Amino acid sequence: MSKLTIAVDTLGGDLGAEVVVAGAIQAVTEFSDINLVLVGPKDEISGLLKKHPSSNRIEILHAPDVILPSESPTLAFRRKKESSIVVGLKHVKEGHASGFVSAGSTGALLTGATVIIGRQKGIERPALGTLLPTPKGFTLLMDCGANMDAKPSYIKQFGEIGADYMKRVMGVNNPRVGLINVGAEEEKGNAAAKEAHILLKAADLNFIGNIEGREISTGTVDVAVCDGYTGNIVLKFMEGFAKTMLGMIKEELMSTTLSKIGALMAKGAFGRLKKRFDYREVGGAPFLGLNNIVIKAHGSSDALAIKNAIRQCVIFERSNN
Amino acid sequence: MSKLTIAVDTLGGDLGAEVVVAGAIQAVTEFSDINLVLVGPKDEISGLLKKHPSSNRIEILHAPDVILPSESPTLAFRRKKESSIVVGLKHVKEGHASGFVSAGSTGALLTGATVIIGRQKGIERPALGTLLPTPKGFTLLMDCGANMDAKPSYIKQFGEIGADYMKRVMGVNNPRVGLINVGAEEEKGNAAAKEAHILLKAADLNFIGNIEGREISTGTVDVAVCDGYTGNIVLKFMEGFAKTMLGMIKEELMSTTLSKIGALMAKGAFGRLKKRFDYREVGGAPFLGLNNIVIKAHGSSDALAIKNAIRQCVIFERSNN
Repeated sequence: MSKLTIAVDTLGGDLGAEVVVAGAIQAVTEFSDINLVLVGPKDEISGLLKKHPSSNRIEILHAPDVILPSESPTLAFRRKKESSIVVGLKHVKEGHASGFVSAGSTGALLTGATVIIGRQKGIERPALGTLLPTPKGFTLLMDCGANMDAKPSYIKQFGEIGADYMKRVMGVNNPRVGLINVGAEEEKGNAAAKEAHILLKAADLNFIGNIEGREISTGTVDVAVCDGYTGNIVLKFMEGFAKTMLGMIKEELMSTTLSKIGALMAKGAFGRLKKRFDYREVGGAPFLGLNNIVIKAHGSSDALAIKNAIRQCVIFERSNN
Repeated sequence: MSKLTIAVDTLGGDLGAEVVVAGAIQAVTEFSDINLVLVGPKDEISGLLKKHPSSNRIEILHAPDVILPSESPTLAFRRKKESSIVVGLKHVKEGHASGFVSAGSTGALLTGATVIIGRQKGIERPALGTLLPTPKGFTLLMDCGANMDAKPSYIKQFGEIGADYMKRVMGVNNPRVGLINVGAEEEKGNAAAKEAHILLKAADLNFIGNIEGREISTGTVDVAVCDGYTGNIVLKFMEGFAKTMLGMIKEELMSTTLSKIGALMAKGAFGRLKKRFDYREVGGAPFLGLNNIVIKAHGSSDALAIKNAIRQCVIFERSNN
């Protein structure tokens, strides 16, 4: 391959294959040096492609089956050999593509990617990262749910693969890594965090020590690491709390005529704020620590989100060469 | 005692004894049926009391020493027998007061309260609760940091003491208890959460099952339980994230003239929002599972926060009789 090739799952997203195809078209338009492989039912995809100007940089890889989020990831992954996730990951494993994007079942993608693509040398467990918006840019939170009872050595490795990602994809020089904990002092935390602190300190990283919960969103660090149970809860709490807070703001703004008019005048500002919290601008959550890059796009991804998830793969792979 | 007596620590808060004395005066004015015991240096307190109209319902209990937040809680608690925390807790233990309020060192208060006052029958570990604002009222999050590696049985008991508090202090009928976890399914989570789910299900509680991070702030449950490591991180993340979000809103509002004017008109709405997130309105974090009620007031508590922390004790104790 002279050009970079990315495989894209057309199945499993909430909005169907149509938005994935549209996102793929956007991606080949934006990046003239990439090829895409759309994985899914051949007939459906070629039908959808006909709605767009034709591109010789998009090909189709037939996969008739889909793994639903409701299925047991490990069982479905083993049984559904013709599912888009299994077919797409194998395509990457065989060297036909350098990365994989999917808006499908998180569990099946994590299990499948680990088994088929395989772990990077020296990494015991791959982990799911998420870029959280901060006043200064983004902080990569990881693990966001791949490893429930993470050993201290896993948490240390999250720091390593997370720092590598921030360097390569976000262009951060010497990324600051922090351990999410209940206090700044080294001896604070649960048993895993205490030991992870010691390992992170000894690692070849710009480890700045423990950070408390309130520092996760302030841009104090570029990579914030913790076990996947805590990370998942923090991430989802952020989503819920942002919604709760915006709801409360709306309620208060609508409670008097004066503030209603004020809100109308400030509408543009709220639009810009919403955009800063819009996951579609980021694209997806990188699943790191594997031999190839895998991006978990949000289940409700639209064309823009899919395009940006492909962009994440492109930037990651370009930094490799 | 015919009247309810609450002991109040005048030392250890960021704003000094002055605001504690002012909060105590507010409390005896609001509640005609309580007595207060102010614990701290006798001369300083009587000097401060002179600035207010005299009350025969406030007495002073001499304690010349203070435990600083920078000190090791267990060491300080053992060495400083004349500290306000030790003297105040002993006063409660001896039956001279029914509850204790302190804005001092959290660690020393938790250690001291557990050792001096003692655990409630059937409760292995007391826990720190925090009332989080939701669109519908409050959700009690616990444990917020007293138990780092909480056993499943502790987490179950957090549900029991939390539900009791919500019933007694917040007047919630049949409080809904949820286990903070990474998915709704029973088999999800880390090892402790999986086992805690089984114990909570079997307990005599209105257990509604697992809740994900995004449901903590939506009012889906009255009591949200988890280990103290996770709870502390969620709580502090909320504080930091609310600040980050309000900062971003401000930044966007100030970026155009139109939205600047709009913001000015909507100022009242933002003021009301801030009040809903103001910890001073709640007063403090209850330390539950002990033989008496202990309230950890925020370190930066002012007179209003102290008064409301005393109010929490009063309501808790009244519901007992």
